[in-house]
Amino acid sequence: MQFTAKDIAFMLNGTVEGDPLAVVNHLAKIEEGATGSLSFLANPKYEQYIYTTNASVVIVNNSLQLTAPVKTTLIRVENAYTSFSLLLEQYNTIKLNKTGVEEPNFIHESAKIGAQPYIGAFTYISQDAVIGDNCKIYPGCYIADNVKLGNNVTLFPGVKIYFDCVIGNNVVIHSGAIIGSDGFGFAPNADGSYKKVAQIGNVIIEDDVEVGANTTIDRATMGSTVIRKGVKLDNLIQIAHNVEIGQNTVIAAQTGISGSTKVAENVILGGQVGIVGHITIAKGTQVQAQSGISRSITEEDKKWGGTPALPYNNNMRSNIVVSRLPDLEKRVNELEKIIKELRKSVD
Amino acid sequence: MQFTAKDIAFMLNGTVEGDPLAVVNHLAKIEEGATGSLSFLANPKYEQYIYTTNASVVIVNNSLQLTAPVKTTLIRVENAYTSFSLLLEQYNTIKLNKTGVEEPNFIHESAKIGAQPYIGAFTYISQDAVIGDNCKIYPGCYIADNVKLGNNVTLFPGVKIYFDCVIGNNVVIHSGAIIGSDGFGFAPNADGSYKKVAQIGNVIIEDDVEVGANTTIDRATMGSTVIRKGVKLDNLIQIAHNVEIGQNTVIAAQTGISGSTKVAENVILGGQVGIVGHITIAKGTQVQAQSGISRSITEEDKKWGGTPALPYNNNMRSNIVVSRLPDLEKRVNELEKIIKELRKSVD
Amino acid sequence: MQFTAKDIAFMLNGTVEGDPLAVVNHLAKIEEGATGSLSFLANPKYEQYIYTTNASVVIVNNSLQLTAPVKTTLIRVENAYTSFSLLLEQYNTIKLNKTGVEEPNFIHESAKIGAQPYIGAFTYISQDAVIGDNCKIYPGCYIADNVKLGNNVTLFPGVKIYFDCVIGNNVVIHSGAIIGSDGFGFAPNADGSYKKVAQIGNVIIEDDVEVGANTTIDRATMGSTVIRKGVKLDNLIQIAHNVEIGQNTVIAAQTGISGSTKVAENVILGGQVGIVGHITIAKGTQVQAQSGISRSITEEDKKWGGTPALPYNNNMRSNIVVSRLPDLEKRVNELEKIIKELRKSVD
Repeated sequence: MQFTAKDIAFMLNGTVEGDPLAVVNHLAKIEEGATGSLSFLANPKYEQYIYTTNASVVIVNNSLQLTAPVKTTLIRVENAYTSFSLLLEQYNTIKLNKTGVEEPNFIHESAKIGAQPYIGAFTYISQDAVIGDNCKIYPGCYIADNVKLGNNVTLFPGVKIYFDCVIGNNVVIHSGAIIGSDGFGFAPNADGSYKKVAQIGNVIIEDDVEVGANTTIDRATMGSTVIRKGVKLDNLIQIAHNVEIGQNTVIAAQTGISGSTKVAENVILGGQVGIVGHITIAKGTQVQAQSGISRSITEEDKKWGGTPALPYNNNMRSNIVVSRLPDLEKRVNELEKIIKELRKSVD
Repeated sequence: MQFTAKDIAFMLNGTVEGDPLAVVNHLAKIEEGATGSLSFLANPKYEQYIYTTNASVVIVNNSLQLTAPVKTTLIRVENAYTSFSLLLEQYNTIKLNKTGVEEPNFIHESAKIGAQPYIGAFTYISQDAVIGDNCKIYPGCYIADNVKLGNNVTLFPGVKIYFDCVIGNNVVIHSGAIIGSDGFGFAPNADGSYKKVAQIGNVIIEDDVEVGANTTIDRATMGSTVIRKGVKLDNLIQIAHNVEIGQNTVIAAQTGISGSTKVAENVILGGQVGIVGHITIAKGTQVQAQSGISRSITEEDKKWGGTPALPYNNNMRSNIVVSRLPDLEKRVNELEKIIKELRKSVD
Repeated sequence: MQFTAKDIAFMLNGTVEGDPLAVVNHLAKIEEGATGSLSFLANPKYEQYIYTTNASVVIVNNSLQLTAPVKTTLIRVENAYTSFSLLLEQYNTIKLNKTGVEEPNFIHESAKIGAQPYIGAFTYISQDAVIGDNCKIYPGCYIADNVKLGNNVTLFPGVKIYFDCVIGNNVVIHSGAIIGSDGFGFAPNADGSYKKVAQIGNVIIEDDVEVGANTTIDRATMGSTVIRKGVKLDNLIQIAHNVEIGQNTVIAAQTGISGSTKVAENVILGGQVGIVGHITIAKGTQVQAQSGISRSITEEDKKWGGTPALPYNNNMRSNIVVSRLPDLEKRVNELEKIIKELRKSVD
């Protein structure tokens, strides 16, 4: 893809300052710009780079006042950051704008496919599956019996969705994510072996959710594991059976949530957090990376950290004392000695 | 699938109380039952729901005494919980009862496939592979050269098994699990770079094992990484090269076990546990989630927690004191001040 | 594969002592050797086994002096360990020496494939992809638009590489690894929902890198996530957007590195380590398993441990005191009591 400064100014409703025919074919940070780069300047901290950048075109704010000549072509807009973000999105949309049904594929005759699909080669769509409009299902995906996908869903290559799961509109699921695998349910037998508890529920993912690469979301034993509207899950996360994640909650990579726990809305969990099963996490809770939550959090909008988790500031303070524990112990040893002597002299 | 109360009573050897023609087409918890739901009541705590549930049919104990009229149809059996579990299993068995060989597939002419297979489309079965009877190999699986699968093995979509690995009978492996990838073995060169140590062993998974989604089990450098009979592994677990996991051991999600460690039988490891390499974990050991084990555990049937792990109760007690460490430090500061003054007054 | 003692002696430039026609068909440890096993003896600690092993052939040092008769056939070489490692490698090379292009596959007409490829069935190579010479791309891989692979690259089954990513020479990527999935970037909206930040950068993996099974490496928001020459990544690792990992750095399983962090060269990170975003880790740093790094490490070649990480020895010392914290607290309680009494008696 190749654009002139003039083309871009037209798209962004901006004005060109420099060569309207300057050509760009990729996006770059202003400090890393080279011939053919389109960049932007929004943060005054980076203003110095406008005079040295090799980017061919830079999008800047209307308000920018130059204090020296520049060799790059400028496009002036109301808000350079917003305009550039818009371009990023359009770039991505074009990059990902696949359509058509590639061969070979396996689409069961009973499956229903909506309008304008992209279905990559080696993708499997099973019996009674329903795919909404404008879905992009990349190569090597697996969609089991009776799965429902809403509209504008993107499944990147190799996503696997087990039977009966329901995916909303505008959901994006990255490569290798597994939706609807069996919950980890086994009942002990008298001889120490385990008997599997059948996992017959499903997973429901509501609208506007994004699921990261190689994340696993287990189906419910009965009922549903539910990921509410607008939830964002990073890579390699484990969501166990019958968990519910509230609206607009954000979870960083490698975090694990055990069975039947309910996480409320607008929660933020850092990476590698662990949460035990059968508890509830209140609305607006924030949890520091690597923390372990072993009890319900009932107070809203509080920050937590550590294993087992304490209120964030308490954990910070405890951590500091932990780092001087050897010294603290020595001081107590010393006190005991002194007191022993004191007692002698007092007696 | 649709059944009448009469059908189900027949299957469970129970008696109908209400409408024998009441129709059900799905399973639900009693408190979530709707028209068409089949539910059960075993726990007296939920007895209230029998009078309000909208489930069409509820399985109850013979011993249940009603204290008010119910609108649902009852099926009375000896043990409602056992009967319902049986139904769950049958439901699952029917759901997963795929058979036949789908096209396109890649099955090497030298591979041997047992009786009654299900082989999904896009599955690859390589040279000299041997597949037992009644195996279900879902779409997009990869079975490398010389891999052996026992009878009644289920590989969900996208399981990858590297060459020479051996899988027992009744093993279930969930989507995205990788069996037999190279152990992480590199020898440092003088210049700071690393030379790969060839990983020529394999993985042996014995009978009745279940492996969770996206779990990885590395092949041995030489010899075998061994998962003994009846082991249950959750999702996103890492089992390194030459590890051995004892019979009926259960491991929760995101736990990692380093190279050559031997975990004995009937061990329970919580989620996100880490175990260093080259140690042994005694029979019946239980480890709390997120713990780190850095030394062998030789005493059997003990509980551990924390990083580095302590006996469970000690760790709990230490954690409590950690939460009041800032206060403890203040108290020591105070004691030092007082003692300084005391010494002065004593001198 | 089957070899005689004579064949192997020829390959290793060694001399046979015993039956030159002794046949071996697999490799085994000396203590586990059986008929048909080829083994080696390098460590004097294992010398006893030479007299009892059932291995058919054992490679030994020229310098080995027998003190009793042996039933196995010996091959004497200058350095038994080196010779055996060489055999391991050759064994592995033969095992993995696939060639040819299997059907069905999907190779876009614009893709360029180098000399001597192995391309497994169900592999997808997209528009403008470039594959170097001697690449082995196992079944079920996905190589998106405009991806470049160097020479001698091995992608094990089910590797997915998103568009625009660049892979160097001699790179090995294990099954289920995802390269170039979107970075986890979302900007909060006023109503608590999140807006995706388009992720238009790529991943660059330099020469001689190995990536473990089910590891995820996210593409940069802009610019590149970079894995430098000689880096070794274990399984289930998370590398976030815009991270840079320095040359010959080694990272154990389940570790996660957050966005924009720069890890220098020759670093060693244990398993399950977490590193926050936007920091730098100095050259030669070593981090103990399960540690959490929340600040830049600027001093080179130091060891760290714990969460939050302390210098290794300090963390060890603090851990020891943590284990006796309940006792320390009791001692402080006791001191307070004594002092209260002392003060009384002094007053």
